[in-house]
Amino acid sequence: MSDEWYTENWTDSVRFSIRIQEHLHHEQTPYQTIDFYDSYEMGRFFTLDGLMMVCEKDEWIYHDMITHLPLAVNPEIKNVLVIGGGDGGTVRELVRYPTIESIDLVEIDKRVVELSQQYLPELTKGLLDPRVHIFIKDGVEFVERAEAGSYDLILIDSTDPIGPGEGLFTRGFYQNCYQIMSREGILINQHESPYFPKYAKQMQKLHHKMKQLFPQVMVYHFHQPSYPSGFWLFGFASKHFHALKDHQPDRWVNFGLNTRYYNTDVHRGAFAHPTFMKEQLSHV
Amino acid sequence: MSDEWYTENWTDSVRFSIRIQEHLHHEQTPYQTIDFYDSYEMGRFFTLDGLMMVCEKDEWIYHDMITHLPLAVNPEIKNVLVIGGGDGGTVRELVRYPTIESIDLVEIDKRVVELSQQYLPELTKGLLDPRVHIFIKDGVEFVERAEAGSYDLILIDSTDPIGPGEGLFTRGFYQNCYQIMSREGILINQHESPYFPKYAKQMQKLHHKMKQLFPQVMVYHFHQPSYPSGFWLFGFASKHFHALKDHQPDRWVNFGLNTRYYNTDVHRGAFAHPTFMKEQLSHV
Repeated sequence: MSDEWYTENWTDSVRFSIRIQEHLHHEQTPYQTIDFYDSYEMGRFFTLDGLMMVCEKDEWIYHDMITHLPLAVNPEIKNVLVIGGGDGGTVRELVRYPTIESIDLVEIDKRVVELSQQYLPELTKGLLDPRVHIFIKDGVEFVERAEAGSYDLILIDSTDPIGPGEGLFTRGFYQNCYQIMSREGILINQHESPYFPKYAKQMQKLHHKMKQLFPQVMVYHFHQPSYPSGFWLFGFASKHFHALKDHQPDRWVNFGLNTRYYNTDVHRGAFAHPTFMKEQLSHV
Repeated sequence: MSDEWYTENWTDSVRFSIRIQEHLHHEQTPYQTIDFYDSYEMGRFFTLDGLMMVCEKDEWIYHDMITHLPLAVNPEIKNVLVIGGGDGGTVRELVRYPTIESIDLVEIDKRVVELSQQYLPELTKGLLDPRVHIFIKDGVEFVERAEAGSYDLILIDSTDPIGPGEGLFTRGFYQNCYQIMSREGILINQHESPYFPKYAKQMQKLHHKMKQLFPQVMVYHFHQPSYPSGFWLFGFASKHFHALKDHQPDRWVNFGLNTRYYNTDVHRGAFAHPTFMKEQLSHV
């Protein structure tokens, strides 16, 4: 085994390290630094600006939780917008629904898509589906110009609020998302983590913004051990639906999809929050 | 800030590191190596044989989940046995219940108790409660000799199944636990993790043993970011109670205890398992 390690500073004083088999690729794009690695324990993975995005060991947890949960609330979803997610994992799960008619993927950096196609073909295979339209554009601008009321589901599959992902955490961006969502629209967004203070602060700021815009705003949690602390969240926002009261488990089971993380029990359990996190979210 | 780090090998190829303010204590006892540290991000913590046991940053998650959950299933619990747990955190939570009459703490290594009293007084304060009886003994021998039917609750607050904790993962040990439990007894045990294969294998072996002995055997999960992968489990075993069907949330709320992690929602959510883990547990 090699003694080369990828190390991520989860905070200034906590580090997570993965032993590397091979550093496959390093590139500076106009937007960010991209690195692909092969590892012994976590499979193949890539980082943007030195932060873990996707690793084979647990990418299926993240992609299950961002896609299947909203489809179990509104199984009638037809038109989907994915912002970010150039690795293809989110789209891979969406194309499994024959009832979805159109998927617009808006990724700012074409190199994320191209390199994922080269190094992670298992994630990008869904991008070839004829219902998928790839736009290499800034998501912030895309939602300014998209047609009002046109999306049943918007998935914000973003990085942290630094670098090119920063605009995806602003109030203006979410106002535009609201405008382009259908009356029954659902929005799911990468929502940081309650554990380390710097992530918890972002979580609180984001929740505050969402509550000012949407009548239904909730967050849900899952185990993502490759992310800082492993305690990670998505946000659920809707003009119409409540993620639990409107949960339709039977309809979702009828889709007949095999999933490794998400299931009907997990759907309900993901909204059961520890007391400290309830307090963090109520003080925003 | 110092550049001294405590590093734990979560697996051969994944490491977790904490920047150290001060290495407070190092000692080799007849049973194990004990180290206490002060850190910037995780507070004060101690390790046994180089593995994280308790850190101030999140010890309250572990101690909430090992104690309050069984008390919400059987609020009539009177006699409790804690095996391991010399740091006092589990007992600290137990003594908050005025209805509990007796707590026997069986810790093999007296230095764990003494050093925790010195360095983590916030954890050990419950050990002074007159209902608490400390036995510096091997838990394996203790359960061989304890009176049949005498405990309403047994908490196995153990290390991993290596070193002095090894005997606490054997079939014989659990057979004796079964004997000394009352008819309505509940047993909670440290149950490893489903994420990294070496822990998942221990989880499966342990679940297999428990299923052969107890009519009710369940596991429940929680976020413990200072442990490998942060995805951690306790086991729930009982001769009589089902952790969800017999859950008495109103009775527990009436105790009026403030908790930072555990609550009635978390109780139910902790038994909602991802599909891959259900499969791991069904193939044992």
